[in-house]
Amino acid sequence: MQKYSFRNDYSEGMHPSIIAALSATNLVQQDGYSEDSYCEQARDVIKKKIGLQNVDIHFVSGGTQANAIVITSALKSFEGVIAATTGHINVHETGAIEATGHKIILVASNDGKVKSSDVIAEIHRAEDHHMVRPGMVYISNSTELGSVYTKNELTSLSQVCRQNGLYLFLDGARLGSAFCSEKNDLTLADLSVLTDVFYIGGTKNGAMMGEAIVITNNNLKKDFNYHLKQRGALLSKGRLMGIQFLELFKENLYFELAQHANLMAKKIADAIKSKGFSFLTEPVSNQLFPIFPNALIAKLSEKYEFYIWSKIEDEKSAVRLVTSWASIEAKVDEFIEDICAFK
Amino acid sequence: MQKYSFRNDYSEGMHPSIIAALSATNLVQQDGYSEDSYCEQARDVIKKKIGLQNVDIHFVSGGTQANAIVITSALKSFEGVIAATTGHINVHETGAIEATGHKIILVASNDGKVKSSDVIAEIHRAEDHHMVRPGMVYISNSTELGSVYTKNELTSLSQVCRQNGLYLFLDGARLGSAFCSEKNDLTLADLSVLTDVFYIGGTKNGAMMGEAIVITNNNLKKDFNYHLKQRGALLSKGRLMGIQFLELFKENLYFELAQHANLMAKKIADAIKSKGFSFLTEPVSNQLFPIFPNALIAKLSEKYEFYIWSKIEDEKSAVRLVTSWASIEAKVDEFIEDICAFK
Amino acid sequence: MQKYSFRNDYSEGMHPSIIAALSATNLVQQDGYSEDSYCEQARDVIKKKIGLQNVDIHFVSGGTQANAIVITSALKSFEGVIAATTGHINVHETGAIEATGHKIILVASNDGKVKSSDVIAEIHRAEDHHMVRPGMVYISNSTELGSVYTKNELTSLSQVCRQNGLYLFLDGARLGSAFCSEKNDLTLADLSVLTDVFYIGGTKNGAMMGEAIVITNNNLKKDFNYHLKQRGALLSKGRLMGIQFLELFKENLYFELAQHANLMAKKIADAIKSKGFSFLTEPVSNQLFPIFPNALIAKLSEKYEFYIWSKIEDEKSAVRLVTSWASIEAKVDEFIEDICAFK
Amino acid sequence: MQKYSFRNDYSEGMHPSIIAALSATNLVQQDGYSEDSYCEQARDVIKKKIGLQNVDIHFVSGGTQANAIVITSALKSFEGVIAATTGHINVHETGAIEATGHKIILVASNDGKVKSSDVIAEIHRAEDHHMVRPGMVYISNSTELGSVYTKNELTSLSQVCRQNGLYLFLDGARLGSAFCSEKNDLTLADLSVLTDVFYIGGTKNGAMMGEAIVITNNNLKKDFNYHLKQRGALLSKGRLMGIQFLELFKENLYFELAQHANLMAKKIADAIKSKGFSFLTEPVSNQLFPIFPNALIAKLSEKYEFYIWSKIEDEKSAVRLVTSWASIEAKVDEFIEDICAFK
Repeated sequence: MQKYSFRNDYSEGMHPSIIAALSATNLVQQDGYSEDSYCEQARDVIKKKIGLQNVDIHFVSGGTQANAIVITSALKSFEGVIAATTGHINVHETGAIEATGHKIILVASNDGKVKSSDVIAEIHRAEDHHMVRPGMVYISNSTELGSVYTKNELTSLSQVCRQNGLYLFLDGARLGSAFCSEKNDLTLADLSVLTDVFYIGGTKNGAMMGEAIVITNNNLKKDFNYHLKQRGALLSKGRLMGIQFLELFKENLYFELAQHANLMAKKIADAIKSKGFSFLTEPVSNQLFPIFPNALIAKLSEKYEFYIWSKIEDEKSAVRLVTSWASIEAKVDEFIEDICAFK
Repeated sequence: MQKYSFRNDYSEGMHPSIIAALSATNLVQQDGYSEDSYCEQARDVIKKKIGLQNVDIHFVSGGTQANAIVITSALKSFEGVIAATTGHINVHETGAIEATGHKIILVASNDGKVKSSDVIAEIHRAEDHHMVRPGMVYISNSTELGSVYTKNELTSLSQVCRQNGLYLFLDGARLGSAFCSEKNDLTLADLSVLTDVFYIGGTKNGAMMGEAIVITNNNLKKDFNYHLKQRGALLSKGRLMGIQFLELFKENLYFELAQHANLMAKKIADAIKSKGFSFLTEPVSNQLFPIFPNALIAKLSEKYEFYIWSKIEDEKSAVRLVTSWASIEAKVDEFIEDICAFK
Repeated sequence: MQKYSFRNDYSEGMHPSIIAALSATNLVQQDGYSEDSYCEQARDVIKKKIGLQNVDIHFVSGGTQANAIVITSALKSFEGVIAATTGHINVHETGAIEATGHKIILVASNDGKVKSSDVIAEIHRAEDHHMVRPGMVYISNSTELGSVYTKNELTSLSQVCRQNGLYLFLDGARLGSAFCSEKNDLTLADLSVLTDVFYIGGTKNGAMMGEAIVITNNNLKKDFNYHLKQRGALLSKGRLMGIQFLELFKENLYFELAQHANLMAKKIADAIKSKGFSFLTEPVSNQLFPIFPNALIAKLSEKYEFYIWSKIEDEKSAVRLVTSWASIEAKVDEFIEDICAFK
Repeated sequence: MQKYSFRNDYSEGMHPSIIAALSATNLVQQDGYSEDSYCEQARDVIKKKIGLQNVDIHFVSGGTQANAIVITSALKSFEGVIAATTGHINVHETGAIEATGHKIILVASNDGKVKSSDVIAEIHRAEDHHMVRPGMVYISNSTELGSVYTKNELTSLSQVCRQNGLYLFLDGARLGSAFCSEKNDLTLADLSVLTDVFYIGGTKNGAMMGEAIVITNNNLKKDFNYHLKQRGALLSKGRLMGIQFLELFKENLYFELAQHANLMAKKIADAIKSKGFSFLTEPVSNQLFPIFPNALIAKLSEKYEFYIWSKIEDEKSAVRLVTSWASIEAKVDEFIEDICAFK
């Protein structure tokens, strides 16, 4: 019997409407390298959702690519990017940022978030040309620990960055889930005002692949295509990107899918709470980090796939559970039953 | 009226059978990062076509990515890669190779091919540690000028490389068309013996995106996944790659598609010859470089898209015409008529 | 009145005997790029001091250069180097290591040292190809906080590194002072056995400039000259390096100079202790980190130069005092008097 | 018997007056990293020679370092530097430029010079973001083939660069010899107006080591120290640089030394001409490339060191002869006699 997976939000393919769109457009001849009409339309519908016309939108195939290209295109060679120790660029990208020549300046974080006071401290630490100069702040929303930024937090970060000449970059690989969190009070329009560049993650929310990078700061717009091409991110058939994001954003599909993922997560989280288990971080998006007795983990592992995140004490560990647009409610219910059945 | 395009071989989407396969597998949960069962099956069928089991196969989303990762993973930091001046890595990748820190050591070429004598000359030129040491030879087959390597030529290159400790890397972005050329006498098995690493291009022959890198030299196999991840080439939903290559290679679709492309090119080439026009390079694959009077170019440009490659003399220019698996025979015939009608 | 400086150990020029040697050899024609006879002789006398012939010795002009070249020459592109947060490569080299593409994997340290348990923890953390793989451990002796490694500590680090396939690299910018510490029980022979590569710092101990990199691991010897040349570290008149290190090591000058620096530091440290002040780290080499009342700091600042290292509490700060081969004992005595006079 | 060397212009140490200055200043305490008073004075005297105050002057230890840092500090990551195939950065720096991530865009050259028409051609070739964009032109004066630029030639290059947004960078490793050529009509003031950055080579003209980088374009001045530090070019005892350049430029020593080198070269060149031998390139500076019968080369090789540059025909080869500030006239005369004695 195949186990049902709550390991991540990229275990299935793409939303069926995207397949339909791929099929419908398949034999139309188009220009290459994201200069096709679908990419153009996708840019238009995203701009409409944002409510701004003067942003540049580029599509890349994944988060590591997006992070490396955005960061290296924005920084001078001696500048570094401030990030949380838990940040994806620090932990799970095999040194992709350093491979472009830039230091990640780390700030400790318990909840996955970077605080404006951390940024200020790092700015003060960098005295002169013997030290890496902070040039950008990288945050992810939702974070790698499932938390989300509030408008107050993002505004504070944005102010510190602007007062000190740093760019603010938001990794939105899981932006859908963040924005559908009950803790969220941010909008795409807010991101456009408060950050210099962010991206809207498709891969983890209904697309087969792809992240839409939105550049709002004029300084960062120029020549971005050169960076894309040099880093191997410009697909010959860029139409694949356009078709996907057009489907996700021409109506409201993107947020409907994230809504479903969060709803499934909330059902699980409520059951876990009612059962009396605690969480490593507050459950507010599609990633949950409950702390389970090891016996329960062993039991669940027989039927389900998920990551054991960290040992908490001898008898308990935190696990990571992830839901997605494709999570099947019946499976979620079964999973909840299996938790509740534990004694 | 939309013009019909002979500009390149990536103007359409993917072969319909791939869409069907994407649809059929869409909701099956799979592991990420090309560790899914479709990638496994795709590797198996390709190995069968090659006739060897002890090769490593990795999928990446495009040629620039493939070239940069293969080259930087193989070279020491002070080593360079020998390539023809016409080579894709030298001309059309925005310095992707240099961005990984490596020099491209150029050899002049009229037909797009690197000759073993050129390689020997560059090896001799590099005397000591004040100069870049050649560590690899990069060739493309078919080349950027449409020519193809013979088994003799490739064997000679291979011998020179092995005698001198250089790796031989074959960019097969258009390998399908090369292998279906009437001038071809190479097989996938030959490539596995004669090169250290090569790739089978999907993007330009029926896939939506993707190149299958085949590593035959054991030295190059180890840790390749680290390079892929660091350079942003490991897709979360690697299944997209597996599904495509499985369709292309489980039977003979890959070569059937290339056969069609070449057949369409040959029809055009024969017509051009019969009309008395000459070619910049001999027409043997799906890229043609006829030399046309400028008046004919102007005429054709009204109905068709293609690149004007280079000025030959005041009244004549070479153009590039590219056919593909998706080229419509009726359009090809119409194009031929329009050429023949020219006076 | 010029203030007397205890700011660092590179405020003066070179030991007078080096000037004499430069003068005596000045017009003798020599080969360039450290292939001259003085470099050869310097290598020979250092090998004799080490007691080993099968080491490779290269001279570079400074510590940042040495660190960047050693690290990048040893690591694969996806590998990182483990270092203390206080390590020079992390703090004061403007991202020189990251500029070569490698991540510094940080371990917290109060005393400037890396512990073998820290190394083990980082090795375990790096699970697979989604994370940077530790490939080297970087330590400095003496450390940036003035502490020194014992033979036990270095042996333990060495064992962990070898058991796990990591290189151990010792930055000896202040090796003279470390080896002349009363806490030291290491020899050059020990370093050759326990590390894979280390360097003997000249700049901070009597030379005008220069560090002698000693490579003991055969894997790291090959092609090192290519790395030196590529990174701009191969001086045309490499004789400058040879002449300096020959003077420092043909007899025992190097250690005599360090002995003087340490003696001057000890005099100051003893006075500070007798006065009842404490230290941020135990004073054992030529760098002292006493904790002074701010009033005393202000007083001393009128006559002396030194760094204020860190605020300890509202009324107290740690300062850094550095002595060198050139420290004038009369000035040291005067400084001590000024400390003792404080009430 | 030791052979007398005409192999290069860095076979001896430094001008004796520099040793005297090193000795005289040796124990004066100074700030590190080129912030000492000698560097300040050296900058002042050089600015006076140039006749401009608003230039930034930085000292580095060698040409490869200077080239790599200037180029990478000026270019965006996707930009390349145009250079002659004979350029030092292309031939003899082990890929130092590519190691910083930048392509060298090559133009063929018979005399070592880059022509403005070559630059224009490369600008036109680079159509869009699929190609490396030229961002700088690199020239050396004198060139690697001993030729020198005229004011007309440099003006033409400068105009093309400014009209097209490229920086012009002049490698002056042998600027002394170039400026003392009878073909020279350029001044330091001209360089400051016509280039964006150039350097005055000390290593090959009387200094032990060091090149003085002069930045005239304001865009390139900012943050240059960060680049220096990151690339390991900021010497702790930067005073070594200041003292040398102060000696060379406080009066006219720099040009007197170059004058001597050129005079010695001219004596040799005149003798070669009178003997009826021809040259690979016109002899106008301290590098001569006469074409000798192989028998003469064999004869001279018994007593002298020099490079055999290239085979011309079966019986003849070009050799490179280099004179310097330290060339002994008696040895030059003896060399001439040995040439004249050949039958």
